[in-house]
Amino acid sequence: MQLFDEDNLSPVRRRTLERLTHAALKLYQENKFPSPEEITREAEYAKVTLRSYFSTHSEFVEYVVKRVIGAFEKPKMTADPEENIARLLSWGYGELFSHEALMRDAMRIAQHRWQTRQEEGSHEGESFLKKSNRREALAEALAPLESQLPPEKVQKLIMLMSVLYGTEALTVLKDTFGMEQEEIVELTTWGAKLMLHQALQEET
Amino acid sequence: MQLFDEDNLSPVRRRTLERLTHAALKLYQENKFPSPEEITREAEYAKVTLRSYFSTHSEFVEYVVKRVIGAFEKPKMTADPEENIARLLSWGYGELFSHEALMRDAMRIAQHRWQTRQEEGSHEGESFLKKSNRREALAEALAPLESQLPPEKVQKLIMLMSVLYGTEALTVLKDTFGMEQEEIVELTTWGAKLMLHQALQEET
Repeated sequence: MQLFDEDNLSPVRRRTLERLTHAALKLYQENKFPSPEEITREAEYAKVTLRSYFSTHSEFVEYVVKRVIGAFEKPKMTADPEENIARLLSWGYGELFSHEALMRDAMRIAQHRWQTRQEEGSHEGESFLKKSNRREALAEALAPLESQLPPEKVQKLIMLMSVLYGTEALTVLKDTFGMEQEEIVELTTWGAKLMLHQALQEET
Repeated sequence: MQLFDEDNLSPVRRRTLERLTHAALKLYQENKFPSPEEITREAEYAKVTLRSYFSTHSEFVEYVVKRVIGAFEKPKMTADPEENIARLLSWGYGELFSHEALMRDAMRIAQHRWQTRQEEGSHEGESFLKKSNRREALAEALAPLESQLPPEKVQKLIMLMSVLYGTEALTVLKDTFGMEQEEIVELTTWGAKLMLHQALQEET
């Protein structure tokens, strides 16, 4: 649980949280998956400090991801869905690569949370379902398709593009095929276009 | 490191390894990510036993994955790439879902290994690049395309299908969109067909 209200944080508590966040980001930039101890040490606080903000380490990592994603300047969307997807993939993989360790750690932690939810017997998965920036960005990118395709097909394309666009795809293409950022952008853009073209063609 | 030779294992050591493997699988079937301690306890061995077979826990988990995948009976491939992909996705997601916790833990551990490689400064990623059953299965499924598409396009399609087919895609579609196994098979099969059709069409 996040143990504070973002909008009602004393200046001192806010500064402390900023320093913890920056310490974590600095360690992630060194391609580490920092432990709570490493983060507080880097920020020069006592070990317990983090625990007064977040009840678990996963929540802190999620908070850092949210902060990083919140600071992203998303590309402008146009009336052309194909152009939108190309912009989103090129920009998005750039951001993912520049925060690769953080994104991989978040993916790792998401699995751990899945496991914890199994133990708790909660199956609704609500905490996951609400935090998808990727889904929202893709829905906006594909919105112009709504005049050309039935809504359920647009939705299916959003889901397929979600698989092509993200840390999961990055790890498959980089770790299994040794691909670099540029190649991943080119490949996934090509795949997205194939799907868009064919879906539109099947409709007419 | 794997500290034994699979083909030259004494009957006693082999039996012990079998019991450890089965204990791990039993715990994974209960949707746990078992620790080395939990596995040895389940198998009724001393804590040190595992360490005489594998120098790290990740390697044991990889061994278990390899054993599970090795026992899979892959579907027969035909001369029709579209049919092959449909068979592979339907069968493969069935296997992934029936070993969901193991596959998620393996994905989690793969991230941890990425991080360790960064620390060691080794960038070749060799340990990942060699262990892709998925790539081989997809190459076989798409082999009939070789008479219709240039080899680099077949290769690109294999890579795109690798993103649609695996634990990574499973977690995106299940955790972000709340999809079930059948829906995931249907969606990814549709997406794969869109790409195949359009790639072939662009060629003619």
